[in-house]
Amino acid sequence: MKVLRAKEKSFSQIKWLLTSTSKSWLEQALSNPIEVLIDHANCERKAAGVAIQMMFRYLSEPGLAEVLSPLAREELDHFEKVLEILKSKGRYLEPLAAPPYGALLTKNVRKEEPLRMLDSFLVAGLIEARSHERMSLLALHSLDKDIKDLYADLLESEARHFGVYWKLAEKRFEKSLILSRMKELAEIESNILSELYCQPRMHS
Amino acid sequence: MKVLRAKEKSFSQIKWLLTSTSKSWLEQALSNPIEVLIDHANCERKAAGVAIQMMFRYLSEPGLAEVLSPLAREELDHFEKVLEILKSKGRYLEPLAAPPYGALLTKNVRKEEPLRMLDSFLVAGLIEARSHERMSLLALHSLDKDIKDLYADLLESEARHFGVYWKLAEKRFEKSLILSRMKELAEIESNILSELYCQPRMHS
Repeated sequence: MKVLRAKEKSFSQIKWLLTSTSKSWLEQALSNPIEVLIDHANCERKAAGVAIQMMFRYLSEPGLAEVLSPLAREELDHFEKVLEILKSKGRYLEPLAAPPYGALLTKNVRKEEPLRMLDSFLVAGLIEARSHERMSLLALHSLDKDIKDLYADLLESEARHFGVYWKLAEKRFEKSLILSRMKELAEIESNILSELYCQPRMHS
Repeated sequence: MKVLRAKEKSFSQIKWLLTSTSKSWLEQALSNPIEVLIDHANCERKAAGVAIQMMFRYLSEPGLAEVLSPLAREELDHFEKVLEILKSKGRYLEPLAAPPYGALLTKNVRKEEPLRMLDSFLVAGLIEARSHERMSLLALHSLDKDIKDLYADLLESEARHFGVYWKLAEKRFEKSLILSRMKELAEIESNILSELYCQPRMHS
């Protein structure tokens, strides 16, 4: 599989991504920019929902809501920006079938606490990291200037969001435990991606 | 039941509230300001969750996400403000049992569309209207200056949020249908409140 190496990009990749995105994903995404935008809007809304769900689940966990609430607000703000561009192109939100990436990854969240909490942070972080990598590619290669600028504008936050989830883990779990679990999950993430067929979706 | 009449308040009440809040609710709330704050934080987070749920349910409904996403952001912003005050008082979020107000009111949302949509807007609007009324009372009567100022700061948005849900209904449904259904739901809302016993909760 041809992959896009770092030298082809001007954005650095979060180190936990074990494989780079394939060229065929990028080609498909560039050929279907509006479909990817619609999917992306859905992803931003879902990301806000995930952060709020965690705030409900760990309601009285000190230091959690303080960072997840602003993160959820930012996801919603991005959602609105994507929606604005979509509308400027004469399109609107649509219920696109999501690829199984998120569901397959989330299956690996262990059931018992506090491991469930650790895994939830790391899985959310990995999804942000992959979004960051793909948005970097779209910011570099998109043909439509508005879309190119949009991704360039949003991608820095994705890297920051990875950092939010990583710090949430770091403040609550031993470093060695985080590192070994992240290594496992990062391998799972790469394996999932390698088995999905390319669709014009952010996480296919 | 002793109720607080409009003349006792400097804030106008949204006309759909058929009964005013009882004096005993206010007395209980003023005696337990921290518990009400914790409950209020939970309410703001829930309100954000409700708006996002509606965005998922009516994903491709034009003009809906554009207003519900900023509304959800604002609810989260309020949540953060309440949390800040709570922390400044040496307290934190807690999983308080919610009174059955919201669940009882939501039971009246009809199952079939588009009536489900209409009822969802009106029920969400009524809850905002009641929050507005009670926050007006707390802004007037709270003994702690920080808490008093907080409610004074937030209550205007609650009235605006009522307006958001009302307009969402107005743009999609016949005026006569909205008015007759709102009348029914407003009666139900008043009846629910009259049957709840007073607790230090925003909606008891």
